[in-house]
Amino acid sequence: MKLLSKDIEIGGVSVQKLREEYGSPLYVYDVARLKENLQEVQDSFLSKYPKTKAAYAAKAFLCGALVDLLAPRGIHLDVVSGGELHLAMAKKFPGERIEFNGNNKSTEELVFALRYGVGTIIVDGMDELMLLDLISRELNTEVEVLFRVTPGVDAHTHEKIKTAKLNSKFGFAMGEVARALELTVAAPGLHFKGFHCHIGSQLFEVAPYLEAMEKLRPLFKLVEEITGAPIEELNMGGGFGIRYTTEERKPLSYFVDPIVEKRSEIFGEEVPVLALEPGRSIVGDAGYSLYTAGTIKRLEGYPSYLAVDGGMSDNIRPSLYGAEYLAYNAQRPLDEGTEEYTIVGKLCESGDRLIESQKLPPTESGDLLVMPSTGAYGYSMASNYNGMAIPGVVFVEDGEAREVVGRQSYEEMYGRDLYL
Amino acid sequence: MKLLSKDIEIGGVSVQKLREEYGSPLYVYDVARLKENLQEVQDSFLSKYPKTKAAYAAKAFLCGALVDLLAPRGIHLDVVSGGELHLAMAKKFPGERIEFNGNNKSTEELVFALRYGVGTIIVDGMDELMLLDLISRELNTEVEVLFRVTPGVDAHTHEKIKTAKLNSKFGFAMGEVARALELTVAAPGLHFKGFHCHIGSQLFEVAPYLEAMEKLRPLFKLVEEITGAPIEELNMGGGFGIRYTTEERKPLSYFVDPIVEKRSEIFGEEVPVLALEPGRSIVGDAGYSLYTAGTIKRLEGYPSYLAVDGGMSDNIRPSLYGAEYLAYNAQRPLDEGTEEYTIVGKLCESGDRLIESQKLPPTESGDLLVMPSTGAYGYSMASNYNGMAIPGVVFVEDGEAREVVGRQSYEEMYGRDLYL
Repeated sequence: MKLLSKDIEIGGVSVQKLREEYGSPLYVYDVARLKENLQEVQDSFLSKYPKTKAAYAAKAFLCGALVDLLAPRGIHLDVVSGGELHLAMAKKFPGERIEFNGNNKSTEELVFALRYGVGTIIVDGMDELMLLDLISRELNTEVEVLFRVTPGVDAHTHEKIKTAKLNSKFGFAMGEVARALELTVAAPGLHFKGFHCHIGSQLFEVAPYLEAMEKLRPLFKLVEEITGAPIEELNMGGGFGIRYTTEERKPLSYFVDPIVEKRSEIFGEEVPVLALEPGRSIVGDAGYSLYTAGTIKRLEGYPSYLAVDGGMSDNIRPSLYGAEYLAYNAQRPLDEGTEEYTIVGKLCESGDRLIESQKLPPTESGDLLVMPSTGAYGYSMASNYNGMAIPGVVFVEDGEAREVVGRQSYEEMYGRDLYL
Repeated sequence: MKLLSKDIEIGGVSVQKLREEYGSPLYVYDVARLKENLQEVQDSFLSKYPKTKAAYAAKAFLCGALVDLLAPRGIHLDVVSGGELHLAMAKKFPGERIEFNGNNKSTEELVFALRYGVGTIIVDGMDELMLLDLISRELNTEVEVLFRVTPGVDAHTHEKIKTAKLNSKFGFAMGEVARALELTVAAPGLHFKGFHCHIGSQLFEVAPYLEAMEKLRPLFKLVEEITGAPIEELNMGGGFGIRYTTEERKPLSYFVDPIVEKRSEIFGEEVPVLALEPGRSIVGDAGYSLYTAGTIKRLEGYPSYLAVDGGMSDNIRPSLYGAEYLAYNAQRPLDEGTEEYTIVGKLCESGDRLIESQKLPPTESGDLLVMPSTGAYGYSMASNYNGMAIPGVVFVEDGEAREVVGRQSYEEMYGRDLYL
């Protein structure tokens, strides 16, 4: 993002021009930044260390054009539903580079995954393991499995995105693993590779990852005892925090280096493949939301309410997690912020607030606002609440823009209504 | 809803049969209940008191088949966006019975509304009033307006759904009304009718409504002074709470009677039209979510995690507002609840929880669960998060079921992706 005196450029393209051409609100991704973030995964992790693997967590943001960036870079794809798998399949993404994650996968989804040749199923619990055993026998096929486990690490993040507490909906409890291993050894279609552990999202400290690895140690021994071989893969999930406002983003190496070192400490010379699942850290700071300022409500003793043409229907994170963002006025981004605004959406709900309080230069109806770092969990969580259409998605690079997902029309929004 | 020994009936239709025919998850509406709720509006309000008007708040749940129930009953429609207006228009809903509400309506939306002949624009603030003046001159048309005002009433409900505090994104501040009236009197296309005030959602006490009416009194005088005539309409919004679990639902008359009485107290013989905007109270307890139980994770010392095939993508209210629901196991609804479950969704996020803790009879994978009172803000807030398809909507009545909104296919979900 480049701030000019009367405009902002993303990927060398004027945001004013983007609004003119593609309308508002709009999701914009800076492809150069996406590539840098992917390159960081390459440089700090994949190329730097042997026996490593990175799977992009599709739930953060998924579309065909993004898959086109991942595929040639050897990045794997972490999907969590038949829907995401369907998109991967439509893109002919190599099955062996897909891992299927998430709790409560359905029979249909597992059959679909095995038929497509999905490389790894991250099994979430006993029920799923037994179902997968059945399905693989039925289809007379083999599949590699990791067990997701919840070792009881309490990561410091929002309650809603902590995932490896003992009391978690995800994964095998530690005490179930022995039985699960025995079942897997006896299952002709299941090949046990190792463990998966995702401790939470939007984390800024590496310590919980190391603590989780330490807590998994007894399981590694258990595997040797039961299967006679060491684990082949250890997937420590994602959760690498990104900058939304002004706090510093930690480089990926801050997380990766100690995790890799811990791997050596635990396993010595013969280490398993270490897999990580970056999602937000790939797409979060590459994405921008463009909004047009509408009405401004001035109140004695409070920040003025500046309403934009989107809101919780295109970015529910502030309402749902209390997430914090910053906005820029693209008409005068370099001017001093002298007025205090609460930036709200246009949805008929008082919780529809995007930024609680921020200083901006005096802002008028019609001004274009740019909200950075909305690339993760914005578009992917968008809804038609209040009859709001889902904005389009544009990729920009080297001064060129291309629409990668079209803006939803009213006809599309109500297309499934059988009484219209 | 009728609990049988091995099934549940809604509208005389077996939920097992509904699942068989329409799949799971599924939104089901009991049409008889919708009609009863609409009849209650008729009996307790429209027929009982002269000069009354009810506008259904479309944002709670909107589809063509619902409009077919509203239209012949003389219910007005409260829309908050061009999207909802589009649906109303597609149904040829009479323009004079539409009111357009919400903050930050766009120029396009207002032009669209005026061209369609929308009866009432509920103007949200000065900026919008000036815009509407301009547009009505440009189109050489007339429109009736209410001013939404925020008198500073602190309703007892969730912070995110309080709407009439002084510090609210909605409405005119009280001090702005005089200037707004003067502007309206001078505007050839704007006909001022009165005020709108919506104090919040999911309220169980009538006192805040009466308090708000009391606080509006000075405005009624102000109108007489400036326009020379009394107000013609007073819209006190909606917000009538419904039962989600076991608490008692208050009958509509609990709210309506004192509000009508207060109207007489304030205005004497010559009362203005009193408008109300029920939304949740019409559709909330008429809607049911059907889910299929999947994996069950048992944990020492905690309720078991019972995962269903939907979650925060089809009902975000538990995550967003901490909303509470109950579920029934449709395989054995009359059996005693002996096991404690936390009912979670299948989305890859730990906040994806539907019910924190509930006793059910021992529940197995494949069992059909019915969650009542999900008719408001379930479907309307649904998303494709995690690549989840939006469930279909079925109306049931007198033993007959009909699909009114089709289940989203993967093709529809990714239909706007230009790189697939």
